[in-house]
Amino acid sequence: MRKLEQIYEGKAKKVFRTDDENVYLVQYKDDATAFNGLKKGTIEGKGVINNKVTNFLMQMLETKGIPTHYVQQLSDRETLVKRVQIVPLEVVVRNIAAGSLSKRLGLEEGTPLATTVLEYCYKNDELGDPMINETHVYAMNLATPEEMDTIRDYALKINAILRDYLKEANIDLIDFKLEFGRTPDGKIILADEISPDTCRFWDSKTMEKLDKDRFRRDLGNVEGAYHEVMKRLMGE
Amino acid sequence: MRKLEQIYEGKAKKVFRTDDENVYLVQYKDDATAFNGLKKGTIEGKGVINNKVTNFLMQMLETKGIPTHYVQQLSDRETLVKRVQIVPLEVVVRNIAAGSLSKRLGLEEGTPLATTVLEYCYKNDELGDPMINETHVYAMNLATPEEMDTIRDYALKINAILRDYLKEANIDLIDFKLEFGRTPDGKIILADEISPDTCRFWDSKTMEKLDKDRFRRDLGNVEGAYHEVMKRLMGE
Ligand SMILES: Nc1ncnc2c1ncn2[C@@H]1O[C@H](COP(=O)(O)OP(=O)(O)OP(=O)(O)O)[C@@H](O)[C@H]1O
Ligand SMILES: Nc1ncnc2c1ncn2[C@@H]1O[C@H](COP(=O)(O)OP(=O)(O)OP(=O)(O)O)[C@@H](O)[C@H]1O
Ligand SMILES: [Mg+2]
Ligand SMILES: [Mg+2]
Repeated sequence: MRKLEQIYEGKAKKVFRTDDENVYLVQYKDDATAFNGLKKGTIEGKGVINNKVTNFLMQMLETKGIPTHYVQQLSDRETLVKRVQIVPLEVVVRNIAAGSLSKRLGLEEGTPLATTVLEYCYKNDELGDPMINETHVYAMNLATPEEMDTIRDYALKINAILRDYLKEANIDLIDFKLEFGRTPDGKIILADEISPDTCRFWDSKTMEKLDKDRFRRDLGNVEGAYHEVMKRLMGE
Repeated sequence: MRKLEQIYEGKAKKVFRTDDENVYLVQYKDDATAFNGLKKGTIEGKGVINNKVTNFLMQMLETKGIPTHYVQQLSDRETLVKRVQIVPLEVVVRNIAAGSLSKRLGLEEGTPLATTVLEYCYKNDELGDPMINETHVYAMNLATPEEMDTIRDYALKINAILRDYLKEANIDLIDFKLEFGRTPDGKIILADEISPDTCRFWDSKTMEKLDKDRFRRDLGNVEGAYHEVMKRLMGE
């Protein structure tokens, strides 16, 4: 597979075309941003860790029946993925109150939620990724009701699978963000990444944060935390 | 029925106990506020109009199968209503983009929505009435899934009924806010008010605003617009 021209550079990854029109190459960077790009920095080695952790978790999810965009890891930072049309939603799943939810609803960080919370944000940088609900999705024609049923179903299944899996590694899954895409033949599959950039991971015993909040909140030892997650999951 | 002590003074109404423990007396004021209380003013005669319009519309809705808190109008500003425990949600129904939706989603005011939008805001002044979805409702135990099914069903039915009814009066129903409550025996009924304070009404021909946006945006002739709505509906 040949790497062709770059078609997108995001905050954390670059996306390239390949000589297979249905396959993209994703390249993970060490760049870190927070608060809609207001805070910028570098997390040494993050790209390598997020690439490996994402691929590891996506392969694991595939074995449990979740279709993903994962095709093949090419190098420490590069992975082939199925080309999809991204559904312009950040799908957020929450088990424990933290971050923006804590602030918006006045729930102390760490408060267990009686039932799983599922949020959708409209991926639109200009508008600041506003939170919406399914009726907005339909009013703006962002996805069909059938697609949203699939996305909701997958998101909750992924939550159950990841939560159990991470628990074995002494990690509590607080919340996480997913992106889904449509394949050329109209199927919904999991895309983008699952990493300490996109999840809140807390050590089950000490409640120590093992994710991007260490960067957002200047907690120190950011690289160490990312590395710890990879080590606990993959033994590396 | 005797009017007993005041139990609540809101921005637009006062609520009193009566000698029937299951009946409250609501008294409508001319006070107007906007932008979470930042803008304050008076709309002469508003209390009388909102009282009459609310009672008129609630009685009309009752005939179409929607249970409401309406009991009896006592005077120009006073009405007896069934005491309920308010479900702490502002239930917003939208047919046409306007107001906060236009701003948040970048949709020009007046854009028809492909499908009806239904939003829930958590009634909590300290938090600024944040928008939430049904999963937040369950996570915070604000209502049960059965109650939310009923509220959603009523809200959409009320929209269909009001939209048709207002169309006859040459008024387009752009969006509106509802509140529901639990009766002592656990039934969900429509409460609070339905008035130019809580709805966006546009003249079907001229698109002229006939609602509180005239106050919010200093468009002038606020009293005239409220009066026009009452006249078109009730011939007064
Ligand atoms: N399989 C895929 N096919 C096509 N696009 C994808 C796929 N997986 C992820 N993407 C998209 O590739 C981009 C990855 O870049 P990155 O994560 O750095 O973006 P970002 O800075 O988060 O910005 P944004 O997500 O708002 O575009 C994202 O836009 C993501 O939606
Ligand atoms: N049938 C009812 N039983 C009990 N309370 C009711 C009933 N109908 C309406 N209410 C409540 O009475 C109050 C009416 O006052 P008003 O509309 O002025 O309040 P507000 O300033 O809008 O503030 P808020 O709605 O945030 O309390 C509201 O709190 C409303 O929820
Ligand atoms: Mg991204
Ligand atoms: Mg009110």
